[in-house]
Amino acid sequence: MAIQQKLSLMIPGPTPVPEKVLQALSKHPIGHRSKEFQELVESTTRNLQWLHQTQNDVLTITGSGTAAMEAGIVNTLSKGDKVICGENGKFGERWVKVAQEFGLEVIKIDSEWGTPLNPEEFKKILDEDKQKEIKGVILTHSETSTGVINDLKTISSYIREHKTALSIIDCVTSLGACNVPVDEWQLDIVASGSQKGYMIPPGLSFITMSKKAWEATESSNLPKFYLNLKSYKKSLLSNSNPYTPAVNLVFALDEALKMMREEGLENIFLRHNRHKLAMSNAIKALDLELFADEKYLSPSVTAVKTGELDAEEFRKTIKNKFDILLAGGQDHLKGNIFRVGHLGYVNDRDIITVISAISNTLLVMGKISAQKAGEALVVASNYLKTN
Amino acid sequence: MAIQQKLSLMIPGPTPVPEKVLQALSKHPIGHRSKEFQELVESTTRNLQWLHQTQNDVLTITGSGTAAMEAGIVNTLSKGDKVICGENGKFGERWVKVAQEFGLEVIKIDSEWGTPLNPEEFKKILDEDKQKEIKGVILTHSETSTGVINDLKTISSYIREHKTALSIIDCVTSLGACNVPVDEWQLDIVASGSQKGYMIPPGLSFITMSKKAWEATESSNLPKFYLNLKSYKKSLLSNSNPYTPAVNLVFALDEALKMMREEGLENIFLRHNRHKLAMSNAIKALDLELFADEKYLSPSVTAVKTGELDAEEFRKTIKNKFDILLAGGQDHLKGNIFRVGHLGYVNDRDIITVISAISNTLLVMGKISAQKAGEALVVASNYLKTN
Repeated sequence: MAIQQKLSLMIPGPTPVPEKVLQALSKHPIGHRSKEFQELVESTTRNLQWLHQTQNDVLTITGSGTAAMEAGIVNTLSKGDKVICGENGKFGERWVKVAQEFGLEVIKIDSEWGTPLNPEEFKKILDEDKQKEIKGVILTHSETSTGVINDLKTISSYIREHKTALSIIDCVTSLGACNVPVDEWQLDIVASGSQKGYMIPPGLSFITMSKKAWEATESSNLPKFYLNLKSYKKSLLSNSNPYTPAVNLVFALDEALKMMREEGLENIFLRHNRHKLAMSNAIKALDLELFADEKYLSPSVTAVKTGELDAEEFRKTIKNKFDILLAGGQDHLKGNIFRVGHLGYVNDRDIITVISAISNTLLVMGKISAQKAGEALVVASNYLKTN
Repeated sequence: MAIQQKLSLMIPGPTPVPEKVLQALSKHPIGHRSKEFQELVESTTRNLQWLHQTQNDVLTITGSGTAAMEAGIVNTLSKGDKVICGENGKFGERWVKVAQEFGLEVIKIDSEWGTPLNPEEFKKILDEDKQKEIKGVILTHSETSTGVINDLKTISSYIREHKTALSIIDCVTSLGACNVPVDEWQLDIVASGSQKGYMIPPGLSFITMSKKAWEATESSNLPKFYLNLKSYKKSLLSNSNPYTPAVNLVFALDEALKMMREEGLENIFLRHNRHKLAMSNAIKALDLELFADEKYLSPSVTAVKTGELDAEEFRKTIKNKFDILLAGGQDHLKGNIFRVGHLGYVNDRDIITVISAISNTLLVMGKISAQKAGEALVVASNYLKTN
């Protein structure tokens, strides 16, 4: 029987939170205009730059990742601007909606859910835009809804060749899970959220702005107030915030970023990579199918087709039996896939555990043999022990 | 010598947080699409309606009070709409800026900082608007920057007589501190923030929407996505959120609202009222001057003129000697006033303590006699013991 209080979060956010971070979260708040809080803003900002591998500004917003993406769009673009939106999942779809809501002219580049965006389609449209009418390229790096990672490195190189268009990138489930070198790839705007690789609860989001992105804010005419990034930049000069920030989440952020620095970027990326490989290969060993193109698997979430099994029932069984929360499919994928999050504060034990729980459930249902279940564990362990 | 970790927050937000609430905050997050979280949304929404004394929808936004006020404005109004903005402090000023940013035509009704808005000026302009061109009246109930409470009851009665204009009210430091009966006063939109009367850390804000306000959303043409309240309303039908909410702050909210229900609205208002009276009368007994008109004192913050004393130095002394954080003056008031917050989780002891700290500091500076210091305590105690 399950003890619901001992829940293990294996969804792509909120992700598990270290005890140290939970303790930081529960400290009594301090004044957000105090010297002590300024010191926190200074230290978290410096560590955020480290995490983003950038010298650009990194701003912290109280709000979800969607708020940060909207901020990126409304601060740098103007009504009627032409933008390319990459769309191969629910989040790609969302950025199209944001762009349209603010009166941008959207050129969609799409790809079936589960498959990656084709960088060459970006190149073609950007190359043909001799008038430099395209002002931005909006896309999602790791598509949380499908478990696909898009080839941001190549696409961003094409955006740079265009010279005018800004890159506005949703790195919500890639940042802190795999390499996103903002300066090296010259990414203009990168948005992310606290409840993902950051290992803290939801409520904060982050946005980097390149020099070129700041220049674009000067001509942007879309209305904004709470999300006006110029106010955030101005406040940051004195390590402050334009509006009252979620002080306790900043305590948590400070602690989590320190833990990340201790582990080191390279180790964090390696850990996520081996979890991705262990997870995806175990899934195949269990005769289940991956939803995403295997050459483009997200480092942070594995989407699994359940075929004739109802994915929602399957998730429910795993939750009731083992207190492990898996994510379901979104929109038309509901019931057809489940998603395993392996993002943030996840260790090898968590991976072996979730694979065992899936195997056990299939075993009890008579879908696989004990032999198969054992093989899946061996496969997973092989990937885990390689590091 | 002060121990900075034992800080007492006597500022108008963030306010002190009960230990129970801090403990709720530090629970491990759960999935925001889970049944368990839906139950929390259902229970907090019901208790928020109780706190607002309304049957209207109350929506929870991850963001500051400014985000909630912006949401009220951008969801119900359209470009070029005429609005009245009441302005007698920093927050009143801010709502003018939001309205202008979104292309509204602002009719300002102002009053010197420290004095209340004159309801008759609202009546006059609303009465003269025979064409019903005024679509909204935006104002701040308790002006946190000055310690003035505006006569919302009378002003809102004039707005109702106009019939077309919506009331869009910043109740950030009045809700949960004094009576704001949303249904009885027929307030259309009321915004508030978690780090105030709610007794939880910053990061959540709240907004009520009347039927008339929802009707106005149908014709509103201002662009919005993260703050599009229709998405929040739609999600609320299944006790959910359109974007990932600050799950842990919702844990805290649930606990704090239960504590508020236990104390009861009437008792909460009485407590704030006696703290206001104890504070303001002790200040006068100490030969200091109140910044706000005494007939319009905010229930949650007392602003004190320091005359020849530098208010910032005074605050610093109180902080260093007693670990009590007071708020300074904002903008042109910086150095001229300090503000004592008595909002949320504040008891009689906190009030006596802050008065003693202020008295002691003045005594040491040679500004008052021991007799005066004693008298101030007696005055305060008299107000406190009346309940």
